[in-house]
Amino acid sequence: MATFKHIGQDNRLADGQAKITGALRFVADLHLRGTLHARLVQSPYAHATIQQIDKTAALALPGVVAILTGADIKPHIHDKSDLRLLAIEKVTFMGQAVALVLAESEAAAQDGADHLIIEYAELPAVMTLDAAMAEDAPLVNEKGNSRTGKPDTRGDIQVGFAEADIIVERTFETPIVHQNSLETHGMVVQPDPISGGVTVWSATQAPFDVRSEVAELLGVPESDVRVIPTPLGGGFGGKFPIYEPLIALAARMVGAPVRLILSRSEELQATNPAPAIRVHAKMGAKKDGTLVALSAEAYIDTGASRSWLPSFTGWQLANQYRIPHVHVTATNVLTHKPPSGSYRAPCSPTVIFALDTLLDEIATHFDLDPLAVRQKNFMREGDVLTDGERYSLSGADAVFAALAQHPVWQQREASKAHGRGVGMAVATWMVGTQPGMANCGLNRDGKLQLNVGVADVSGVSTAFAMMAAETFGISPDDVRVVITDTASGALSGMAAGSMTTLNTGAAVIQAAADAKQQVLEIAAREFEAAIEDIEIVNGSVQVRGVPDKAIALGEIASKTLGSPYAPILGRGRTVSSGENAPVVCGQLAEIELDAETGAVRVLQLVIVQDAGVAINPASVRGQMAGGGVQGLGWALYEQLLYDDGGQLLTGSWMDYAMPHSTQTAPHIETIIVEVPAANSTLGVRGVGEPPVIPTAAAVANAVAHLAGVRLTELPMTPVRVYQALQAQ
Amino acid sequence: MATFKHIGQDNRLADGQAKITGALRFVADLHLRGTLHARLVQSPYAHATIQQIDKTAALALPGVVAILTGADIKPHIHDKSDLRLLAIEKVTFMGQAVALVLAESEAAAQDGADHLIIEYAELPAVMTLDAAMAEDAPLVNEKGNSRTGKPDTRGDIQVGFAEADIIVERTFETPIVHQNSLETHGMVVQPDPISGGVTVWSATQAPFDVRSEVAELLGVPESDVRVIPTPLGGGFGGKFPIYEPLIALAARMVGAPVRLILSRSEELQATNPAPAIRVHAKMGAKKDGTLVALSAEAYIDTGASRSWLPSFTGWQLANQYRIPHVHVTATNVLTHKPPSGSYRAPCSPTVIFALDTLLDEIATHFDLDPLAVRQKNFMREGDVLTDGERYSLSGADAVFAALAQHPVWQQREASKAHGRGVGMAVATWMVGTQPGMANCGLNRDGKLQLNVGVADVSGVSTAFAMMAAETFGISPDDVRVVITDTASGALSGMAAGSMTTLNTGAAVIQAAADAKQQVLEIAAREFEAAIEDIEIVNGSVQVRGVPDKAIALGEIASKTLGSPYAPILGRGRTVSSGENAPVVCGQLAEIELDAETGAVRVLQLVIVQDAGVAINPASVRGQMAGGGVQGLGWALYEQLLYDDGGQLLTGSWMDYAMPHSTQTAPHIETIIVEVPAANSTLGVRGVGEPPVIPTAAAVANAVAHLAGVRLTELPMTPVRVYQALQAQ
Repeated sequence: MATFKHIGQDNRLADGQAKITGALRFVADLHLRGTLHARLVQSPYAHATIQQIDKTAALALPGVVAILTGADIKPHIHDKSDLRLLAIEKVTFMGQAVALVLAESEAAAQDGADHLIIEYAELPAVMTLDAAMAEDAPLVNEKGNSRTGKPDTRGDIQVGFAEADIIVERTFETPIVHQNSLETHGMVVQPDPISGGVTVWSATQAPFDVRSEVAELLGVPESDVRVIPTPLGGGFGGKFPIYEPLIALAARMVGAPVRLILSRSEELQATNPAPAIRVHAKMGAKKDGTLVALSAEAYIDTGASRSWLPSFTGWQLANQYRIPHVHVTATNVLTHKPPSGSYRAPCSPTVIFALDTLLDEIATHFDLDPLAVRQKNFMREGDVLTDGERYSLSGADAVFAALAQHPVWQQREASKAHGRGVGMAVATWMVGTQPGMANCGLNRDGKLQLNVGVADVSGVSTAFAMMAAETFGISPDDVRVVITDTASGALSGMAAGSMTTLNTGAAVIQAAADAKQQVLEIAAREFEAAIEDIEIVNGSVQVRGVPDKAIALGEIASKTLGSPYAPILGRGRTVSSGENAPVVCGQLAEIELDAETGAVRVLQLVIVQDAGVAINPASVRGQMAGGGVQGLGWALYEQLLYDDGGQLLTGSWMDYAMPHSTQTAPHIETIIVEVPAANSTLGVRGVGEPPVIPTAAAVANAVAHLAGVRLTELPMTPVRVYQALQAQ
Repeated sequence: MATFKHIGQDNRLADGQAKITGALRFVADLHLRGTLHARLVQSPYAHATIQQIDKTAALALPGVVAILTGADIKPHIHDKSDLRLLAIEKVTFMGQAVALVLAESEAAAQDGADHLIIEYAELPAVMTLDAAMAEDAPLVNEKGNSRTGKPDTRGDIQVGFAEADIIVERTFETPIVHQNSLETHGMVVQPDPISGGVTVWSATQAPFDVRSEVAELLGVPESDVRVIPTPLGGGFGGKFPIYEPLIALAARMVGAPVRLILSRSEELQATNPAPAIRVHAKMGAKKDGTLVALSAEAYIDTGASRSWLPSFTGWQLANQYRIPHVHVTATNVLTHKPPSGSYRAPCSPTVIFALDTLLDEIATHFDLDPLAVRQKNFMREGDVLTDGERYSLSGADAVFAALAQHPVWQQREASKAHGRGVGMAVATWMVGTQPGMANCGLNRDGKLQLNVGVADVSGVSTAFAMMAAETFGISPDDVRVVITDTASGALSGMAAGSMTTLNTGAAVIQAAADAKQQVLEIAAREFEAAIEDIEIVNGSVQVRGVPDKAIALGEIASKTLGSPYAPILGRGRTVSSGENAPVVCGQLAEIELDAETGAVRVLQLVIVQDAGVAINPASVRGQMAGGGVQGLGWALYEQLLYDDGGQLLTGSWMDYAMPHSTQTAPHIETIIVEVPAANSTLGVRGVGEPPVIPTAAAVANAVAHLAGVRLTELPMTPVRVYQALQAQ
């Protein structure tokens, strides 16, 4: 591995101080002259027809300017309606927007929303997988409530089970979990009456997707929509376009800027949480722990809209272990709930909860080392996935080695003797390579100005500064990273899939190298020296070893404002190898259990993860610890609950349980291993998503280790644990 | 000359409709949350010491938040104070800012300003060149009131005058003229408490200069200052940094966004108008009209600060005609008036007024064709200038030919017989070549997104779109030009010197060609064809002559979001040849004269100008006509007048005479000639400044033609003309 000066050193996040002190401005801080404040009027029913809407009282209130309904916007919808606009005639989930009140203040808009009279005729709702799949169930949409995709298969599943010495089989259930960013969704939209386009300020992970969705709804070229991404107060996969098209349409209809900042209650009722999932899985193994067969049926409740998540879930179930015979189906089930979205490592906590429980059970049954069984069956470089792609080199063995050596693992039987259980789980998260784009210029203060088109959800800007600094030969403090808006940056992908550091990072390095070459060319002319003899040292260029005649980088920049030098403009445009860079994350959970209440308490959580090359280890550890805490939420606390009538029972943070500081493990340990990826610049792998994946499975396996019971439903609440203990 | 599809066609300005309908947002339309409104408290004296400032009453007013004075800001000034901050102890011009009132509304700020009690001790002021240069004159600054620079010389002036058959000699005076943009100076500054830097929204011709001046005052790296240029409601050389550093400092001191939009009265009192100039010039010629000697002393009253304008004036006097013996001095004189700045073709109207009057007088004396005398003596390619540079190829002969053929010129004696005078003047404006920068990307709607770092004062964005469209092979409507802010674009020059289309345009063409090459490479792979066989037709790429399999450009853009294609990112970085691209502008004025009142009325103004290659002829003609109207202002109407005590007598548009619609020539004719420049991409020359230059001289020569009197003071008001006629 190359030796680095900055990469691999702990660095504070560039925007950390601004975030901590409150100096950072978010989208909610933006006020344009003449702005109208929007408030959603949401359906109180999960399924109903809209009989009548009477705006009279609401419009008479002071400050209320306009009220839009589905009927109002229908003639303006260019392409097709969807559930994220305003309901037309019918609502299919509680919280669905039925009207939009626009007023001179947020309070007036709320008043208007409270005074709008809407008559509904309630219809029977289906709220669960079973209800939705029952014969004669009310249909969520006319094409039917469930649809099973093409199975993920390998080998011959019959043959596989025939070869097995043991077959274990269970049904797992995981609930709807919300991303729960500290900042809710928010946007401000300024219409442009000339082009018919708009400018959108949005807290988004995907400015270019906001641009295309808004343009599509408005029926204008995407070039007439400018999206200015604002700093994110949390993303976690939830900050993709939801209400931007609606607010853009409203702004254009009223000809004024419109601002919508969701309340916490709206956020919980009507955004895009993780889907509820049921997995029935059956795993067959030989006596020595070799897995030979896996069949699974996954049912993914994506609420009132279909989604890409079911097929992704099936693919993940089939491709975690090198099992010769696999047959996995995934069924997309619709219910009268809000449409699902992506949540950090979508569906993967469920997948690993199912697979790793069964595997753990097999190891226990044959009294094999659970770690060795996992390692033996883990995917390896060159293994063929069900989509025909091949698994690339991973750091699995390094992760297993670190887990095996850890005292928590080594002393697990001693711990058990003291009333503490120790569980393990391991996951692969497949990170894809994509094209990347970056630009950089040089300022007259000698600082490198780096422009990228991807949002920063996880501290990537700081990593980019370090990568550019390393390449260019300056300090990371002398790099300014700017996230461009869609009109001043080139087309870029979204900040998602743990891909940003890997892919945009490659372009950053290319741009910095290009800028450096341009600087060296100028210096070579100034010094009348060969370009190979020029170096950048202490913020200056010099002929190697001749610091006396050094020229400051800022002075080089000044020279580019006059003849005969062109401005410094480094460019990074990288292609993808098309191959993946798998990230392996393994976790150990040490727990104790109150047999009288069923309460599980996690004492230690050890997170081992392969970062490929950790650009900013402090930030990698931050992502790992944060992911682990969210994983504890999945394991023990979090769920969006609805009653049979479709009413959300957990519509505030008073009701929705997230782990607070005393509920997370008192000790979270993060161990980075570094096995450089084969197909990535510097060997970088992704970081953000993997650490949330194995936690629930590790905690469940710890409960099994201690108490001998297998929990199959998340969250593992005291009552569920207690009941399992009783049933034992 | 190459044949173009778009270049050379008349195109509407891209932002024209938005400007006309009022949809365009200017800096005054920007309101940030928590903004404090600023109002300057200006000195009522031209020269005084500040004895005492009492803030009590002003601070007690509702809405007034803070009042800053020179004493308050002194400890925070990092580098050096200047007259554009707040006066410390002393004021040296009327209108100088003595305090800044910050309040919750503009009205409250004005109230505060009205209630601030400031005691001054008035000092004697020098208001004129003569007063300033008198012995024992009060000093404007301690280094003395006048300073004469190194003369511009050629040959031996004694020898020159000895060879002359005639010597003419006159003293010319031109007043302070204001740029008078429709939009006054304005800015909003948001402080960043973390970095100590700021974000500045400013109506500026020079965002990168605002950045460096603000950074210097604040003592932060320029990379910590982000300047977002707002659309300009007029520039004319006046929109360079004045109050941005002060407002940035104030915003940082109070920790809130601060907004200052100058009132018209503040704009007239305390910005940066053209300097008053006196030129004493003496010209010697042979009988055949050959010029042999020119001596001149120019006195430039730059108000209370020294400037680069005097030496520029001297250089221009020396380098308009190929005179073998030249001796020109320029003296910078300080007075107790606001510091001068650049005004469209700085000082050049005065230079041509002087030179072209004397030349006209020589031609008349020997009864020579005034046009032929000009043409004979005009600078030609290869002539050496007083700074050692050489004059490049110009379109002078084409301009003279167009003037000679024009009916207004051909029928001048018939016109005179009917009581109408016809005058001519011709000027060269030297346009420099500079490095340029541009970027372009491709959007999924097939539109080219072009980013430049220079402000648009004169419609250059539309020209850029045409240049990019021509190069790339699409329609100008499918190019979106975005002016980047200083944080998302590379270091660029200012929008000034008529250089923008020439220099940034070269980079635009390079960037579009680069992007096209990238698109063709992708298409070649998609079609499995040679890159030479690919063409862009109707917004699609296709194998030459095979439209059936065409791929839309937008689809190519979409492909770059996935493997194996890199994003389209065309880059333009151009160097300068170091040579100039002189622009020649000649004008004919036909006038009539009321001998009883002295009133001059311009009947026709013919403007002939070499554009090199006119990218957008409609825009070039617009610049030419607009320049001519401003030239009529110089000739007949405009002046900032002060009384002896330093009080501005023309502090509003009620008092300051600008030509209104009935006062401009009833017929303004614009004739573009095109002699491509040797050292410029496409042959483009500058356009914006030259048309203001010759107008005053042409009108004066028309008065001489008709009435035989030589006017030597601008503006040629009725009383001056009447007195000249009486003195005859």
